[in-house]
Amino acid sequence: MLNKLASSISSLLDARTNGHSLPAGLYTRDDVFDADIEVFFHKHWICVGLDCDVPEAGDATVVDIGRTSLILLRDDEGEIRVLHNVCRHRGARLLDAGSTIISKLVCPYHTWTYELTGELSYAPHMGKDFDKDCHGLRQVNFKSIGGLIYVCLSDNPPEDIDLLERTMAERLAPYDIRNAKIAHQTDVIEDGNWKLTMENNRECYHCSANHPELCVSFVDLDFGFDPETLSAEDREQAVEHFRLYEERTRAWETDGFPSSAVEQLTDCATNFRTQRLIISGAGESQTHDATAASARLLGHMSRKDLGDTHLWGHNSWNHFMGDHAVVAIVIPLSAGKTLVRTKWLVHKDAVEGVDYDLDKLTDVWIATTDQDADLVARSHAGALDPAYRPGPYSRFSETNLDKFATWYIDRMRANGY
Amino acid sequence: MLNKLASSISSLLDARTNGHSLPAGLYTRDDVFDADIEVFFHKHWICVGLDCDVPEAGDATVVDIGRTSLILLRDDEGEIRVLHNVCRHRGARLLDAGSTIISKLVCPYHTWTYELTGELSYAPHMGKDFDKDCHGLRQVNFKSIGGLIYVCLSDNPPEDIDLLERTMAERLAPYDIRNAKIAHQTDVIEDGNWKLTMENNRECYHCSANHPELCVSFVDLDFGFDPETLSAEDREQAVEHFRLYEERTRAWETDGFPSSAVEQLTDCATNFRTQRLIISGAGESQTHDATAASARLLGHMSRKDLGDTHLWGHNSWNHFMGDHAVVAIVIPLSAGKTLVRTKWLVHKDAVEGVDYDLDKLTDVWIATTDQDADLVARSHAGALDPAYRPGPYSRFSETNLDKFATWYIDRMRANGY
Amino acid sequence: MLNKLASSISSLLDARTNGHSLPAGLYTRDDVFDADIEVFFHKHWICVGLDCDVPEAGDATVVDIGRTSLILLRDDEGEIRVLHNVCRHRGARLLDAGSTIISKLVCPYHTWTYELTGELSYAPHMGKDFDKDCHGLRQVNFKSIGGLIYVCLSDNPPEDIDLLERTMAERLAPYDIRNAKIAHQTDVIEDGNWKLTMENNRECYHCSANHPELCVSFVDLDFGFDPETLSAEDREQAVEHFRLYEERTRAWETDGFPSSAVEQLTDCATNFRTQRLIISGAGESQTHDATAASARLLGHMSRKDLGDTHLWGHNSWNHFMGDHAVVAIVIPLSAGKTLVRTKWLVHKDAVEGVDYDLDKLTDVWIATTDQDADLVARSHAGALDPAYRPGPYSRFSETNLDKFATWYIDRMRANGY
Repeated sequence: MLNKLASSISSLLDARTNGHSLPAGLYTRDDVFDADIEVFFHKHWICVGLDCDVPEAGDATVVDIGRTSLILLRDDEGEIRVLHNVCRHRGARLLDAGSTIISKLVCPYHTWTYELTGELSYAPHMGKDFDKDCHGLRQVNFKSIGGLIYVCLSDNPPEDIDLLERTMAERLAPYDIRNAKIAHQTDVIEDGNWKLTMENNRECYHCSANHPELCVSFVDLDFGFDPETLSAEDREQAVEHFRLYEERTRAWETDGFPSSAVEQLTDCATNFRTQRLIISGAGESQTHDATAASARLLGHMSRKDLGDTHLWGHNSWNHFMGDHAVVAIVIPLSAGKTLVRTKWLVHKDAVEGVDYDLDKLTDVWIATTDQDADLVARSHAGALDPAYRPGPYSRFSETNLDKFATWYIDRMRANGY
Repeated sequence: MLNKLASSISSLLDARTNGHSLPAGLYTRDDVFDADIEVFFHKHWICVGLDCDVPEAGDATVVDIGRTSLILLRDDEGEIRVLHNVCRHRGARLLDAGSTIISKLVCPYHTWTYELTGELSYAPHMGKDFDKDCHGLRQVNFKSIGGLIYVCLSDNPPEDIDLLERTMAERLAPYDIRNAKIAHQTDVIEDGNWKLTMENNRECYHCSANHPELCVSFVDLDFGFDPETLSAEDREQAVEHFRLYEERTRAWETDGFPSSAVEQLTDCATNFRTQRLIISGAGESQTHDATAASARLLGHMSRKDLGDTHLWGHNSWNHFMGDHAVVAIVIPLSAGKTLVRTKWLVHKDAVEGVDYDLDKLTDVWIATTDQDADLVARSHAGALDPAYRPGPYSRFSETNLDKFATWYIDRMRANGY
Repeated sequence: MLNKLASSISSLLDARTNGHSLPAGLYTRDDVFDADIEVFFHKHWICVGLDCDVPEAGDATVVDIGRTSLILLRDDEGEIRVLHNVCRHRGARLLDAGSTIISKLVCPYHTWTYELTGELSYAPHMGKDFDKDCHGLRQVNFKSIGGLIYVCLSDNPPEDIDLLERTMAERLAPYDIRNAKIAHQTDVIEDGNWKLTMENNRECYHCSANHPELCVSFVDLDFGFDPETLSAEDREQAVEHFRLYEERTRAWETDGFPSSAVEQLTDCATNFRTQRLIISGAGESQTHDATAASARLLGHMSRKDLGDTHLWGHNSWNHFMGDHAVVAIVIPLSAGKTLVRTKWLVHKDAVEGVDYDLDKLTDVWIATTDQDADLVARSHAGALDPAYRPGPYSRFSETNLDKFATWYIDRMRANGY
């Protein structure tokens, strides 16, 4: 019962058994949460938003990562900037949550004024000898990768984001995410630890029982299955699916669309995986009938049959399809609360009601996210229960969870825990 | 002020003065709360419900004890089972709060399926070598004593529940609580520590000033009084009451109804007390006019004049009367929040509106519980105040509190604090 | 990130740089909050209310300072008393929050009864040998200074309150605050640390950008400015203001109204400052047009042109004007929550709607307090941000904040941190 008092984080890490879910305290303890924020959200690259969150010069939006508040903006030169939302005078928040349009960053407290580059340009009553150059807004390391904004809050960002960067720059180019339009955004707070949110996303073992809407377009076989448990008919379908997968991948790659899986899931700092997946049924998009939701395709896309380029990070998942994309960003709020922010992207000129129907665009992932929130809450409640014991992952359909847990332990170790 | 940081639990236990209420921190500190849960709610027998919570095969109800969630159910053979509500796969809660009817226990996450005995019978994608026998739901030690379900969450349950078991099995037999009907149930959350809830229940010093409804039927003298503070008239009444008590007890026992007090309140693990008490006035039942609320008597009872068989545990109080019974279960939620769950029982065939009026059945204890919730909140607020000093218990009307406090200290010591 | 775990309070105190705001943890950490309560709210004199909160014998009001609940009352002899709101029996709260009229203090739990002096006069069932004299309500050290009630919860109250007492007894005499009437009171909970609330009050650097209503009557120049940043016109106004200030002060003092600044802000336990300030514009009162809100002046005042006698304590600020006074009391609730209780006082015989209009009386400080609550919340959010770095105070307009921070560090040190 008193495990939260009884043991160090290090001994919890020791207690992990390969092939099994994590010891309870790693999901539930406040001290582990603080360590997770430090290690996985300050010292690793995390996805926080998109270039197209701030399409025009002067656009700014606030992204809060725990106690850290970031300003993502586009400066007067049209360049993206990521700045800490903390006045250098008495620490006041400059901008409130949400999006706004600004020409300067003016602190509401004492009117200290910063340029959109972060430079301090006005600080009344500070005397003529005051060095404004030393008091600009603190800058955040960031990269825009194919239009996705990754930041690292530490001064020593992991270098192995290179593979992600090289891979996705090429794969995302045709979608021109940088210039997409955010057609819709939702924030869902799940009552569970962020790692349970991520584990839930990394298997589709739970899909058939829980996600009827998603299963129209998504093939749960892609994330593993036990061949012995399939009926003869299902096994035949599986064989046919993988035959089709090989055929399509070859065809896509021949056409110049890289498709095969690239992953960096263990023995690395930057955790990601991408692959172009087949969409079931009508084959176009993750909608209720698997047909495209938007008549205007994304970016330079001229085909709806290029499947679903999925991308996992350790705090995000993404699906890029011909007509639209879904980007989900995971932000831990406390040991037992996690924000899942989902954005639906369409071509910047696509018009709601003309080119796309918003309900059709969003309803599959709205339903899926709500269903997942319930599952994550159930798992977290169980992890809090003294009767919880780490359970066995399926070696067929939960291998990616085992890798995630292993990576988690390794990264904690690498950061001194 | 900083006592919560300054001292160990052990030094708080040392600081207790006999005859006085506990040092404040034992009521208010979070670390003490965690220790209390471990010692008094995991290592001792606690009352969690009734056989008649699940009258039919397939009935199941969830009882949450802090972070522990239990499934109380009746299996296909009609046997009671108590199982941990934690899937052995990834720990998800199987059942939500409340009562339900089930044929299997199916985890909503990945459809692992358990029989009502707890055996795992289906676990897809786990491979043919997977040992289902090792992954049944974890079982909880329990006893049904006269229809009351006691559980012990530890593997070494105290053996001295024997006296409670022998005593109550005999005394409760005529009431046939096992086959009663739960006519009503309330959950009240008190803003105070569970020990203040229990102390409040173990004295009737506060009754005359606070419980006008209960005092119609309940004799506060039974729980002690200072003879010097009684008026001549009151003293005469007291003498008459105890004369009557002796007379009735003899008569009840002659008729085969054991009545005299049996208690195990100190120098023991299992803390209980029972006695058959006189009901005032009309003498039948704890109702607003002391007459029976149900025309259909409980179990095999043929008399309404058998008084009130009270039973205390360290997390429950009970009153068994001819026509109905009241069972209260106390579940700590945090250092300063305690759930009091009250159940009103009648004969299983008693019909609301025909045999009994629900308001008459419940209004005395609904009022009394609300009044007590206010008193407990006042005490807890005081215990949080740095100006609180442990106060003297009355050696006449609060001796049972002194015993409870002594038992509390002893049990903490016996469990390593 | 993990500064809350990584360092002792003492090392946070060490980390403070002169001329800069405090290290973040001193504003945000729970352990520092507990220390603050102990040091600044238990061992120092704090303002908790007014004589005129309880104008008549039998009037009582409850003031909660954290977990400490105080009863401020006027006894049968007309004397003020401050008692702990904790029954000496089982610690129950005697009185609920708010004001009431009583002839005795009767504990609702077991009817222990105390005289308004705090003496225990009735305690049933305690036996004839019970020593009631040892069980009176615990008394609190207090002083009424010009009608303001200061308490010290420690047994060794700082003696250097003498200067405050001598100074204010004389200055407040004409206002007869002791016999004023509380025309209005508000409780605003600010989402910030109490020290940020106090810092905000001790500078008017933020006034021009944030307090349009207050700036009608209040001269921000009085709390410092950088002469270099003023325009030629503004500099001329400043020169004129200080010339006027000298002239008025001389005239007021000649007329028998002490006016010049008296302060004890560093190298002391009791932190205060007072000065008679000029009111702008119409010059009478802190109202939307700077004219008096009440036609009936306070106490023995016969002039509306005596400016604003301001008084700071470390948990209060006050403005005494000819027609009314504003008294604000600051009570920390948690590291990030602070109660600001504001009282508006008028002559006891002033009649609402006849002598004064309540909106005119209160609207400037209602608006100002709401504006300040927003600024304090912004500062606290920033202090929680790992990107926060202590910032430079203006050496012109924030010198009093530097003194406050220095005093804070010194008093923590003096109390063993």
